[in-house]
Amino acid sequence: MPEPLAPDALSPVLICGTGLIGTSVGLALARAGIAARLSDTNPAALRVAAGRGAGRQADIDGSDCPPRLVVVATPPADLSDEIVGALRAHPDAVVTDVGSVKAEPLAEVTARLGRRDCARYVGGHPMAGSERSGPMAAAADIFDGRSWAVTPAAEADPAAVAMVELLAVTCGSAVVRMAPVDHDRAVARMSHLPHLMAVLTAARLVDAPDSHLRLGGQGIRDVTRIAAGDPVMWRQIVVANAAPLRELLADLRVQLEILDGSLAGPNLEAADTGALDALLAAGVAGTNLLPGKHNRPARPLVTVTVQIPDEPGSLAALFTTAAAAEVNIEDLRIDHDPGRAFGLVEIDVVEDRADALIAALRDNTWPAHR
Amino acid sequence: MPEPLAPDALSPVLICGTGLIGTSVGLALARAGIAARLSDTNPAALRVAAGRGAGRQADIDGSDCPPRLVVVATPPADLSDEIVGALRAHPDAVVTDVGSVKAEPLAEVTARLGRRDCARYVGGHPMAGSERSGPMAAAADIFDGRSWAVTPAAEADPAAVAMVELLAVTCGSAVVRMAPVDHDRAVARMSHLPHLMAVLTAARLVDAPDSHLRLGGQGIRDVTRIAAGDPVMWRQIVVANAAPLRELLADLRVQLEILDGSLAGPNLEAADTGALDALLAAGVAGTNLLPGKHNRPARPLVTVTVQIPDEPGSLAALFTTAAAAEVNIEDLRIDHDPGRAFGLVEIDVVEDRADALIAALRDNTWPAHR
Repeated sequence: MPEPLAPDALSPVLICGTGLIGTSVGLALARAGIAARLSDTNPAALRVAAGRGAGRQADIDGSDCPPRLVVVATPPADLSDEIVGALRAHPDAVVTDVGSVKAEPLAEVTARLGRRDCARYVGGHPMAGSERSGPMAAAADIFDGRSWAVTPAAEADPAAVAMVELLAVTCGSAVVRMAPVDHDRAVARMSHLPHLMAVLTAARLVDAPDSHLRLGGQGIRDVTRIAAGDPVMWRQIVVANAAPLRELLADLRVQLEILDGSLAGPNLEAADTGALDALLAAGVAGTNLLPGKHNRPARPLVTVTVQIPDEPGSLAALFTTAAAAEVNIEDLRIDHDPGRAFGLVEIDVVEDRADALIAALRDNTWPAHR
Repeated sequence: MPEPLAPDALSPVLICGTGLIGTSVGLALARAGIAARLSDTNPAALRVAAGRGAGRQADIDGSDCPPRLVVVATPPADLSDEIVGALRAHPDAVVTDVGSVKAEPLAEVTARLGRRDCARYVGGHPMAGSERSGPMAAAADIFDGRSWAVTPAAEADPAAVAMVELLAVTCGSAVVRMAPVDHDRAVARMSHLPHLMAVLTAARLVDAPDSHLRLGGQGIRDVTRIAAGDPVMWRQIVVANAAPLRELLADLRVQLEILDGSLAGPNLEAADTGALDALLAAGVAGTNLLPGKHNRPARPLVTVTVQIPDEPGSLAALFTTAAAAEVNIEDLRIDHDPGRAFGLVEIDVVEDRADALIAALRDNTWPAHR
């Protein structure tokens, strides 16, 4: 069992790749008093990252003293090459990465270097990101309070694992240690399949008449929001995690066949909707399994809807009212109406505070209802 | 061209079915000074609706004077029977309904009564609802600012159409007139398929290990939220709109086959990802087609993320700050961290106000970034 490390045990850190995540790691380390070195094949990105305070450019001639930790933060398609390159170039360093997929890069790196040399490589995946990309979108605090998966191979050096977990904690995240294959199955289910489902739903809008689009409400907006993410990055992620995704897609195709069969009866009134019922029930059950806040079991929430003028200050007044009534808002959605200058706000609160909130909003002249 | 009608041209109104929508129609009419009559086979629901002010119970012995307008607001599976019953029982009344599907009930009603008697029937579909149901969940203002589809058959009496559109406007909605078949295709695409996609995604969580669920973030929460809706009502909706839904499901199965094929190459690095690229691009394009607020073209938005303590008053302070900086918040999401007592709030603002918002939040000691 290695002793706990102090944050400066990470230093010197070299960050390879100064996009959104690499630059944010540099900024988070700078916030913790650690000055990183930065490298990127794109000199413009490198200058922006350095200029924003994520670290200083690594010396090209190799005159820097050797890094203790190398963080590979390149696009998904380049990860294996970059990890192998880092392990070779820095034979005493721990190497980690921030890629969305863990098993395939590990297998490639192991095949090319052998297991012994790979003991210094420990994969990582911070659960932070954005629909934006690049160093201008980076910030020191994007990891705060997020999960950071750490995915060591069985042969990984425990001291290397400790160093990567220290990186995650120093950046503000909570470590979730998982085996690489398990991680990939998890993100296939929790992130990559949902992304593809959002994309498949949104893609159906491309040839929709305007009159159809006018009937779109908050439901389809929620379902499709993440489909706006960078398609080049998502292609690389999906390709790299193809195996577990294909298992889920195979399940999905079976589900769709069953669903279609339950809608195909010659007399639908008498059709066997048992399969449809089971699917809808599983959907309700699945939404209830998503974790509540702070890892507590989810408490039953109810939604309060309130109508507010669509102008600066309305939300402030609304929330001041809620706060004065000592009601904690758990979640909130805003839906703009199709023809008028006000918005409809849906506020989720724990069930036993809903009436207090509605009363307070109404006392304050806001039309509100469950 | 009939003359414009005043709201009291609707009266007397009979509402058949006092669930969420029927009771809310009664409350909205009461707000406009129109006292509706209510009927329901469930006497408890009827008493609750009447007690909440949605109208008075219709006389069972038929001593009421004949209604001008009958609003059928029963569950989807009962619509045709109820519409036929209303047309027969009230030979001088206009009859409308509030069901989610329009072509099948119209066809059934026409087959049973003939086209001439059906001229008094004009379907409607207010784009309002909730994951809750029943008269206790009703409110006068749930239709305010929403679209209300009005779907007359070609043979419909123009005066009947005008009366149903007056109902929609009196309840606070904006009329969207559509042919019944077109409406059903629109809601299959904009509402029913998204619902099934959310359900299919959420259903994959039922057998997920806890460690997988811990990696779930805002993305999967958004994609699956509507899957929590009432499965009995959704089964009836899906069955009633089976034909256009099955067309979309057939498209979807083809898309999935292509997607799977593009992930199945013996050498993925060299795989033809053209189909995957096209799908991801269509997803981005589709999200951009969803209407912006107030029917204006969508303006480019950027997301500002801010970290706030998870306690009453935090959101109030945040929005007071935004309002003081004259920044209008277009949308907002709240993500709770997995282990700490603060929340991460994502705020969408038009691009040229993002820096002002960030500066104001930071001046106020809130950590904020794009």
